Order: sequence, then C-alpha cells, then structure tokens
Amino acid sequence: MSEAFAGLDTPRLLLDADRLERNAARMAGRCAELGVTLRPHLKTAKSVHVARIACSGAPGPITVSTLAEAEYFAAAGWRDILYATAMAPAKLERASRIGREFGAELRLVLDDAAAASALGAAAGGARFGVLLEVDCGEHRSGVAPASPALGAMAAAVASTPALRLDGVMTHAGHSYASDDPVGIRAIAEAERHAAVSSAEALRAAGHPCPIVSVGSTPTVLFADHLRGVTEARAGIYLFNDLAQLSRGVCTEADLAVSVLAAVIGHQRSGPSLVLDAGALALSKDLGANRFLPGTQYGWVCDPTTLARLGTLSVEPVHQEHGTVPVPDEGWFERWPVGSVVRILPNHACLTCAAYGSYDVLRGGAVRERWPRIGGW
Amino acid sequence: MSEAFAGLDTPRLLLDADRLERNAARMAGRCAELGVTLRPHLKTAKSVHVARIACSGAPGPITVSTLAEAEYFAAAGWRDILYATAMAPAKLERASRIGREFGAELRLVLDDAAAASALGAAAGGARFGVLLEVDCGEHRSGVAPASPALGAMAAAVASTPALRLDGVMTHAGHSYASDDPVGIRAIAEAERHAAVSSAEALRAAGHPCPIVSVGSTPTVLFADHLRGVTEARAGIYLFNDLAQLSRGVCTEADLAVSVLAAVIGHQRSGPSLVLDAGALALSKDLGANRFLPGTQYGWVCDPTTLARLGTLSVEPVHQEHGTVPVPDEGWFERWPVGSVVRILPNHACLTCAAYGSYDVLRGGAVRERWPRIGGW
Repeated sequence: MSEAFAGLDTPRLLLDADRLERNAARMAGRCAELGVTLRPHLKTAKSVHVARIACSGAPGPITVSTLAEAEYFAAAGWRDILYATAMAPAKLERASRIGREFGAELRLVLDDAAAASALGAAAGGARFGVLLEVDCGEHRSGVAPASPALGAMAAAVASTPALRLDGVMTHAGHSYASDDPVGIRAIAEAERHAAVSSAEALRAAGHPCPIVSVGSTPTVLFADHLRGVTEARAGIYLFNDLAQLSRGVCTEADLAVSVLAAVIGHQRSGPSLVLDAGALALSKDLGANRFLPGTQYGWVCDPTTLARLGTLSVEPVHQEHGTVPVPDEGWFERWPVGSVVRILPNHACLTCAAYGSYDVLRGGAVRERWPRIGGW
Repeated sequence: MSEAFAGLDTPRLLLDADRLERNAARMAGRCAELGVTLRPHLKTAKSVHVARIACSGAPGPITVSTLAEAEYFAAAGWRDILYATAMAPAKLERASRIGREFGAELRLVLDDAAAASALGAAAGGARFGVLLEVDCGEHRSGVAPASPALGAMAAAVASTPALRLDGVMTHAGHSYASDDPVGIRAIAEAERHAAVSSAEALRAAGHPCPIVSVGSTPTVLFADHLRGVTEARAGIYLFNDLAQLSRGVCTEADLAVSVLAAVIGHQRSGPSLVLDAGALALSKDLGANRFLPGTQYGWVCDPTTLARLGTLSVEPVHQEHGTVPVPDEGWFERWPVGSVVRILPNHACLTCAAYGSYDVLRGGAVRERWPRIGGW
C-alpha cells in the first residue's frame, strides 16, 4: 500500500490539483493571447472547486451540459451560464426557475426555427437569451453557416417575445478525429469561419449578434487566430486524459485525473492482475485506442509517480473487475493482493461521472475532498 | 409528448414493475424446479424495492458486488449477504462493521491462499465465512477446480482463525460468449461440474463445504440440472436487456428497463433525430451488437408500446447527445422537438448506474420512484 493513499477505499477518483491549476492557467493564457473570453465547459468537472480554478478565482462565464449543472453552479454564485445542449420545451419551466431563484442569466442554444416558437409558447413569462447553433463540420447539431436556415431561425427568434438573439455558437467536435496539428488547425479555422461568417450574415440582415462562440480543447489550443470570435468554450483541458494525449493535445504531465485501484487477485491462467476497478469505475470508453493502440480501458500506473507500469493496460473489464494482463508471474510479487495502482482513463468526462467526489492531491498527497454534481 | 410521461424530466430511467415481477417469478420458479436456493445478485438493481421482489417479499440470501451495496442492504434488513468481488485487506474493517452494526452475515470470496493470511491479519477480531472461488472457464478469477491450489486455499482458511470455510463458488461469465442454447447448456454443465467437483475434493480432504454456489442468468436458465449445487446466483434476469435478448436468454416482453429521452433536435445533414440521452444516459456498452448487429447504443422505441421504431438505433453518442439516423425527414414530423421516445439499452447494469432512482411503471404509467445506491 502506497503510504500516500493509506486509508482510502478503492476504487477512488483522484484529482491532481497542481496539474489542474497548470492546465487552467495555460488555457487562460491561451485565450488572453487569442483575445477571446474563456467560457470553460464544466461538463467534465461538475465541481464548484474546479470551476473557481477554471474561472481564475471568481464566478465568470461558464458552459454546462445539463440543467442539474446549471442549478448547481447558479446556487453557488455563477451568474452567466450557457446551457450548451439543445432545449426541450418541457425543460423550460425548470430553466426559468434558475433565473428567478438565483438571478442567473441562463442562455440557451437553438438550431431549429420551429423550436423557437415551441420555446416561446412554453416560456411562461420568462425571457431567455439564445445562441443560434451552426454546424462547422461535425454534423451532430446546428444549421449550415450563414444559411437560409440560420436566417429563418433569427427571424423566428426576433418574432418570439420570450427569446432574445444573443449570438451564434458552434463546436468542432470532429477535431477529435485527428492527431495531426495541421489537420486540427484546419478544423479550428473552419470552426472560426463558420461562426464568424454566420455572425456577419446575421448582422447584415439587421440582427444583433454580440456573442460569437466557438470551442473544443484541441481547436482552441491549435487555432492560428480567432479573429471575429468573442468567446471560446473548452472543458477537458482542465483534466486531460489519454484521448487528448493520443491526439497530441497534452503531455503525460498534464493528466490530472486518475483512478486509485487495489489489486484484489492474481490470475495464473493469463497471467493477470485483477483490480477492483472495472466497467463502472473506468467507463467503457475506448476513445484513446484509435491513436494509441493498446490503451484498452486505461493505462496501469505506479501509484506514486503515475508512470505507466511497462505497457500494462486494463483489458477486459467486467462491472467491478479490471483484468490487467502481465508478462509473467514475477509481477505478482511486485504487486501483491492489497497493493494499489493508479489508472489513467481514456475519457475523463465519462470516468469522473461514476464518482460523487474527487480526492484532491497536492504535492502528491490527498489533502481534500471536493464534491461533484451528477445526474440531470 | 406521451401523456403517460408528462412532467417527467429527461433523460430518465424507467422500470416496468409488471415485467420485473414476471421476471422475478420466472427465476424463482426455475430455481425451485432445479432444487437450489436463489441468491439474487443485486449489482444490477441496487435497490431494496427490487430486492424485495427478487426475494419474494422478505429479506433472503443475496449477492452484492460492492461494500456500498452490502451496507445499504444490511441497513435495510438483509442478513445473508455474499460479497462476490474478491476482498482487498484494506476493506476488511469496513466489512466487519456490517456485521457489528447490523448483525448481518457478510460472506467473502477468496481465490488466493496468500490472501487468506493477509485477510486474517487485517480482520481485527471479526470472523468471516468465505467461499473459495474456482474458475469454470471464464479465466477472470478463481483457481482451477478440485486443484492443489484449491486445497492450499482450504488449508490456509482452516489455519486462519478469522476465516471459516463455508463452501465454493464459481461464475460462468463466458456464457455471454454464446447465443446457442446447446452451447450455453454445455457451459452450464461445466460451471456445475467445476463447483461440485471442487466441493467433493474439499470434503474428501476433510473440509466442510456446505455451500456450493454457481450462477449467471444464462446458465441458470439453460442448465439441464444442478445436482450437487446448493444455490444459484443471477441478477440481470430481473431487468434483462438487449445483450440478453441477443443471446436468446429473454424475449422483448421481458425487457423491464428503458431510458425515457426527448427529441431535442433534427439534423438535416444525415438526416437524424437528436436525443437528450447520450453516453452518460445510456453508457458506452455495445454488448448486444455481437449477436444483434445494428443495435449500436440501443434501440429507439415508441414511448407507449416500447415497440422499436423501424430499425432505429442510437449512433453515435456524445456525452449528452444521442444521434438517431432516420431514413428520411418525414420522421421529423412524426417525432417533433419535444416528443419523447424510450431507449432499450445494451447492458442494464451499466445504464442504470448513471441514475439515482427508477421511475416505476405499473400498467404503463409512472406510479412511484424507487431510489438506488451507487458508488463504492
């Protein structure tokens, strides 16, 4: 048992606050250099402690992915919140309570002219700022940039008293399909151009468009410039993970989140170590394997140094078991039942979601526990 | 909006109690017919309400996968609990509290002779019944049946005052690798034989072996007989899922768990419906696709009848977005923004883990909310 983790149950989610603070400062500096406001996406962290670090100490503009997050951050003092998942009209009453109860401004995204009138009908006296979503190439959501569909949405918003047109937004999620800086840079430029050209089209048609919002961790870090953009959204940069590492977006020293796991068995037919971190503790995301083959469900690392143990990975996982093939039974002596390892996960957003809190490391030792919000 | 679900936020986990009760009764009847005690595995359900149904109304023998589950069920009155994940010595103090505080008998599994003495050293005055785990072919954990390693474990337990040898257990997790009833039946017989031959070897060596425990939903349902076995463990049969359906283990009418999701967008480049149920709401498990290609992250179903809508599936998922390719834009009129669908998941254990409660259907309408326990 590593002394630093004595007394901690396993599996447990560890967050290295020293790395987190470096990651946050790097992105804040990057956005200052690009001349845009940073609006961190807190769907990964879901924690007010992390949000304070991401916002340089005081509540600033943030992005969320669920109304549960919006309520949690509003209750903790955040006042400028973009809910970046498209809105179902049935959720509008809950959304309007966030304004009434906390005085927070919750902005919505919209990518459908028909939805504008449905939202207007359901708003019940509340008024929301909206960002029109454009599709810069991922094809998940949004309308074509500077398109007739964008103009139709703007007109629908303008004729809906419950809505106020605040700008445009786009998200280059397809930046994850590349591990090539040149390719990511091209996607960043396409993302910027989609947003800026749409803003220009709206303004030319007489609509206001104060906010021009883009973002993903790879594109914000790799963009040549963001001229015409007013704000950048990114989230995973706070923690990073093997999926980011595999795409060249961060280094191993930037990986802030890991799972503490105990060796609970030695399987001689294999041979393999058996850990108490399986599919629930790690998630079944395999996102790093495309560019880092052999990562499987995560790297198995020394608990103190976080250096990978040889080329060990977790594979396969069951609900509460993680199996780690080892080259020979000599590993059983070095890693006896009861010893602990740390797992670097593929995808921090999904791994963290299984836990109710972070055990927070400073100088390599657990100093605090920070709660996080889950659910919807 | 389907009237039955008006006022429910999405995404939401629905549990059809009528189906659950039928599934529970079927397995109870099956175990009675086989002449074995049913010890339901509650790692899927994690709910006292479900556990009462699984145990025919009153607390009976159960299986759990985490100490959090053990504590939760012990606090609710369960007294005979098998913790079926191998034990790290550091968890023993917490385990012993379950006996002290609730008077519950928590049995442990063991597959390593060296771990017996480590557990003995950490027991601190408590005494635990243990089942020795044998490997019937999955090679995840356990020692070879009736092997010298098994005898060595029994001897280690006999010489450790903190431990008491209560029997043997095995789990044919590899039954999931087949969708052929003949193949599953053969695996069931191998599972039975591994446990029974091990029990006989222990008894021949003078050890007690009152409990002979086997189980997985497919093998318990398909076994020709379980002679020599005293108890069967199974869990997913309570809910079933597409992974079970894909292996011929249940029918569509037995699928008790689904996710209620709202349409939040229409993506014309595709075309596709966009749902507010993504990777967190469904999990990234793809377990049904091996035998049901095209299932992707789950079937998209009518909210009232739970009949699949054409051949619609969720693919791809992002954290809070599920994309559902549709044949043509005519689907947009039938499923407008704000309408709801139900998703049948691949793997109920992982999907349910994202939620803090079940919304419980009886006669097709939500009647209750049942909490569930998460974490570790």
